[in-house]
Amino acid sequence: MEDRDEPLQDIAHLGHVELLTPKPEESLWYFTEFLGLECVHEEGRSVYLRGYGDYAATTFKLTEATAPGIGHVAWRAVSKAALERRAKAIEDTGLGLGWSNGDFGHGRSYRFRDPDGHLMEVYYDEERYVAPAELRSSLKNQPMRFTGRGAGVRRLDHLALLSKEVGPNRAFAEKNLGLRVREQVIFEDGGFEVGSWMSTTAVHHELAYVADLKGANGRLHHVSFWIDNREDVLRAADILTENGVFIETGPAKHNNSQAFYLYSYEPGGNRIEIYSGGYLVFAPDFEPVIWNEAERGTGVYWGGALPDSFLNYATPDIAAAGETSIPDIDPL
Amino acid sequence: MEDRDEPLQDIAHLGHVELLTPKPEESLWYFTEFLGLECVHEEGRSVYLRGYGDYAATTFKLTEATAPGIGHVAWRAVSKAALERRAKAIEDTGLGLGWSNGDFGHGRSYRFRDPDGHLMEVYYDEERYVAPAELRSSLKNQPMRFTGRGAGVRRLDHLALLSKEVGPNRAFAEKNLGLRVREQVIFEDGGFEVGSWMSTTAVHHELAYVADLKGANGRLHHVSFWIDNREDVLRAADILTENGVFIETGPAKHNNSQAFYLYSYEPGGNRIEIYSGGYLVFAPDFEPVIWNEAERGTGVYWGGALPDSFLNYATPDIAAAGETSIPDIDPL
Amino acid sequence: MEDRDEPLQDIAHLGHVELLTPKPEESLWYFTEFLGLECVHEEGRSVYLRGYGDYAATTFKLTEATAPGIGHVAWRAVSKAALERRAKAIEDTGLGLGWSNGDFGHGRSYRFRDPDGHLMEVYYDEERYVAPAELRSSLKNQPMRFTGRGAGVRRLDHLALLSKEVGPNRAFAEKNLGLRVREQVIFEDGGFEVGSWMSTTAVHHELAYVADLKGANGRLHHVSFWIDNREDVLRAADILTENGVFIETGPAKHNNSQAFYLYSYEPGGNRIEIYSGGYLVFAPDFEPVIWNEAERGTGVYWGGALPDSFLNYATPDIAAAGETSIPDIDPL
Amino acid sequence: MEDRDEPLQDIAHLGHVELLTPKPEESLWYFTEFLGLECVHEEGRSVYLRGYGDYAATTFKLTEATAPGIGHVAWRAVSKAALERRAKAIEDTGLGLGWSNGDFGHGRSYRFRDPDGHLMEVYYDEERYVAPAELRSSLKNQPMRFTGRGAGVRRLDHLALLSKEVGPNRAFAEKNLGLRVREQVIFEDGGFEVGSWMSTTAVHHELAYVADLKGANGRLHHVSFWIDNREDVLRAADILTENGVFIETGPAKHNNSQAFYLYSYEPGGNRIEIYSGGYLVFAPDFEPVIWNEAERGTGVYWGGALPDSFLNYATPDIAAAGETSIPDIDPL
Repeated sequence: MEDRDEPLQDIAHLGHVELLTPKPEESLWYFTEFLGLECVHEEGRSVYLRGYGDYAATTFKLTEATAPGIGHVAWRAVSKAALERRAKAIEDTGLGLGWSNGDFGHGRSYRFRDPDGHLMEVYYDEERYVAPAELRSSLKNQPMRFTGRGAGVRRLDHLALLSKEVGPNRAFAEKNLGLRVREQVIFEDGGFEVGSWMSTTAVHHELAYVADLKGANGRLHHVSFWIDNREDVLRAADILTENGVFIETGPAKHNNSQAFYLYSYEPGGNRIEIYSGGYLVFAPDFEPVIWNEAERGTGVYWGGALPDSFLNYATPDIAAAGETSIPDIDPL
Repeated sequence: MEDRDEPLQDIAHLGHVELLTPKPEESLWYFTEFLGLECVHEEGRSVYLRGYGDYAATTFKLTEATAPGIGHVAWRAVSKAALERRAKAIEDTGLGLGWSNGDFGHGRSYRFRDPDGHLMEVYYDEERYVAPAELRSSLKNQPMRFTGRGAGVRRLDHLALLSKEVGPNRAFAEKNLGLRVREQVIFEDGGFEVGSWMSTTAVHHELAYVADLKGANGRLHHVSFWIDNREDVLRAADILTENGVFIETGPAKHNNSQAFYLYSYEPGGNRIEIYSGGYLVFAPDFEPVIWNEAERGTGVYWGGALPDSFLNYATPDIAAAGETSIPDIDPL
Repeated sequence: MEDRDEPLQDIAHLGHVELLTPKPEESLWYFTEFLGLECVHEEGRSVYLRGYGDYAATTFKLTEATAPGIGHVAWRAVSKAALERRAKAIEDTGLGLGWSNGDFGHGRSYRFRDPDGHLMEVYYDEERYVAPAELRSSLKNQPMRFTGRGAGVRRLDHLALLSKEVGPNRAFAEKNLGLRVREQVIFEDGGFEVGSWMSTTAVHHELAYVADLKGANGRLHHVSFWIDNREDVLRAADILTENGVFIETGPAKHNNSQAFYLYSYEPGGNRIEIYSGGYLVFAPDFEPVIWNEAERGTGVYWGGALPDSFLNYATPDIAAAGETSIPDIDPL
Repeated sequence: MEDRDEPLQDIAHLGHVELLTPKPEESLWYFTEFLGLECVHEEGRSVYLRGYGDYAATTFKLTEATAPGIGHVAWRAVSKAALERRAKAIEDTGLGLGWSNGDFGHGRSYRFRDPDGHLMEVYYDEERYVAPAELRSSLKNQPMRFTGRGAGVRRLDHLALLSKEVGPNRAFAEKNLGLRVREQVIFEDGGFEVGSWMSTTAVHHELAYVADLKGANGRLHHVSFWIDNREDVLRAADILTENGVFIETGPAKHNNSQAFYLYSYEPGGNRIEIYSGGYLVFAPDFEPVIWNEAERGTGVYWGGALPDSFLNYATPDIAAAGETSIPDIDPL
């Protein structure tokens, strides 16, 4: 496989994300009543959630912690053999943590940290969602009923991680996960890789690495959920505002990704995006779109400049946490 | 590669489609002024078109012919080696026609007919679109300016071909193109494969084979173009109606694919769909969703039953063409 | 006032509507959980509801009855003097029933029947809605919080009544309520007034009279609620279908009124419309738009022909009720 | 009529607006190709335009001038008698200028200046639009075909005028035009009337007076056009940006009026709004919604704060014009 001219295809897609919150009850309200996710399981300090369009039993784990931030990021392999190949490759990098026995919704996984320290895992066995009678959709091809509750997001779309240095993390994900770079913001005549957006599917990006302007490690910029129409994003803004949830920026349109976005802070402090539009990537020889200072501009196509907080705030918030290291959480 | 457990990934995506029309001028009006495609080239009896979001120079070729119908369907390989592999595999089936020197926008291709007789090709070298100054987008990642003309479709999405028997064509596409089945309509307790929807990307389907109720070969059901929001489909219905273009059905929502659709007949007689929504397929072990008679119902989730013409009319229209064989057209 | 050249302006707008249902609990689910109305009061066999954008305390009264149908229709006068003038004018027609002491949400009213027998009233004193803390909007100019529950209709828009003969009822409403005719469907070279759409505000119609093809009296065709965007109507169709509520027709666009509509039957059997778009009428000398057989066509601009039930079904359903007279209900 | 308890109803609605531009060709491009207005007449230095939903032959006059700004604002009376009454009332204020012989599209008008000096007129005779064959709509009740060109605004909605002092102008419009106040921004415990939004129809506002922070007279803040759906506003933002037109603010949602807006500068320098949503006013005893400093906030419900230019820039721009008096233009 190694000398083939095709891209590495061992990872199928972003599988699930674990988010940490110091306010579990309030956060749960946000994710179920506002975003409209469904709670499918509770265990220990965690609840397991899903969007109506996610095929897996769960794609989003919400875990109580002393500070907000990312718990872990999980990638589903295309096969058992692909999982073994990825585990071996990652082990060879020295960043592997070893095998876990899995978690609710998925089987054994190989755990590791990216160079910046974010906890990740790869796995293959996934529990397909089977809706209970009251949540069965009238569409046979829709895993769960569209309840119409809150914003009604369809599925987990992507996440953005801050990292002290983007390059090594981006390269690690390219080499070991087969993520392909879609867009990059590179300043200083190529000297400063501000951010790289990557995915392994046709979806524009499943993972972005963005430079942590405070020089910290292991932090989260945002987790993003997909919604089908731009009007749905506007409706979400109405609901958020009626509920007094802080909207940081949007609804507006990014230049990078072309997506229509709305960023708010869930009660635990993490930045969450509602996302629609953008473009799919089909070209096998797609060349990353690279934006310099002038081209990047405010990072907004239309809809108002991004606020300073968008560049400076991440979770855990350094001032609040009093440290820049990876938050101390239980193993997966 | 042959014994791996992962799906075959030699085909990157549906590359382009050639449509035949007996009314080239009127058809061109429909595709440029109504759909909003851009004309990039003319040659012989053909014009070459593109959507603002297509990365290739052209994705849609419109060719004058004595009757409407499909000219050919082209699949882009992920690499030169993959192209060779596909050519070899197809040649082995006995359905190969040999290599062509390419066409405007792409390099050499291996031509073949599917078991039902539709003309197809695989190729790798693709000319990337570079917009002239007046069509350059203010978005660096958008191949062409969004002109806002007509319905303003973003890109070619998929096509549906009628075939005398679905099964052999579906199996041929699975085995030789690596298309994976997303949904099927199977009646008579598994005895009658009415249709199969397939793709090789996350897009729900790039190609559908549907049973030709008149028992003919080589006919086209529809070609479909993507638009981002459901509201865009409604707006397209307003424009179509103001222009007196026949709307066959929709705007409405399919159960199969979940997509929001609008079908009209372009002046040459071919059925064209404007399409939004639906779901993306990410699971590497996705299990096709199969609909029986009761589940299929009218084929509509909401919005009114499909008219009889939707089942009976295709191009070339048999009554009009007086024959059921493949239309006689120039080689690629 | 009688000889002035301006239209009569004594009626401000359609105030509220009372709907009868034999299934009060199921109907209440439909109006609160699906349409998203808020319940503000219960009394006797009635609940009083409102849309988030209605300024009055209540605009929709749902009353248990032996059969579905319209309870009464209430018109708010522009002033106390205007109320007196209307009461006097109606009394002079011989159709007056006398004064009532009002009901929850409004003061004394003058009751009457239109020539077809539908119960109506005019009143002036209206209780303005003051939201409790938990339903207070973050918009000072919005009477109630947008909860985002269900379809989330904004306000009561209009209703359509069947009548044995349209002409006398239309003329009664013109002369005594000052409703102005916006559109008419007139067949048989002017010989058959199929329907007349009327209002006293800029809203296209607040009341329509349509010929009862079964020759009955006092029946209801539908009550309609406004929603801001066409996309909201599509979203409502998704929610309805997931809940197994019968959609009779739509989402589609009327030619008459230009509105985008969705008709379903609430569990009690009454036809309810969700409505968006259309046009406002500003011309003081607006000339009614009159459609003959050819122009009327299917009554649909695009989206599929209206089903037979749309013409034949009304509440109370004659077969079901076994009679054609006005349902026997308690006085207001 | 004078002692009646009902509101004055002599003015039917905002009839048309004349806009001045120093760049007539570029401005014409903006109004026809971007906004999608139709040009119906040219005369002298003026072109006369209309939206597809306007019933009058023309609602928007674009006139070449040395500086941008408002030419005049015209109000249609409900009848000839109402026109005479308004002319008499205005003459009595001492602000009347006398009768004109009318203009393209309308008959004689009584001209006057509001206290701040903006030129206005009242008239009754209006030419109804009759579309030429190529612009006839397939909807009998739609005055003109929806061409789908550009943003495709439906109709003129309202305008906002700056004035040295809001109070006297608002009071003049209430007393002499019968405009009713819908909302007000009043700061300093009632001491500073920042703005008043008024209309005579159910439309939220047809005219706003806002304090000119530079203390000038006779200036224009913006003219606004209606579009049916919020998604249409987003689409307009895409088209504007692709055409390099300056977007000042939006798409976003006002708290005042609840409307979804997009402000750009047409090439002549005037601020133009694309507007959707908001609420209609039906209550005959509607009480103006008054916002103080804290309630007003940024003037935005969601979507980013209004930029300084929104408060400081108006046409004619004082710095550019070098004066604060009313622009010198030809009589109507």
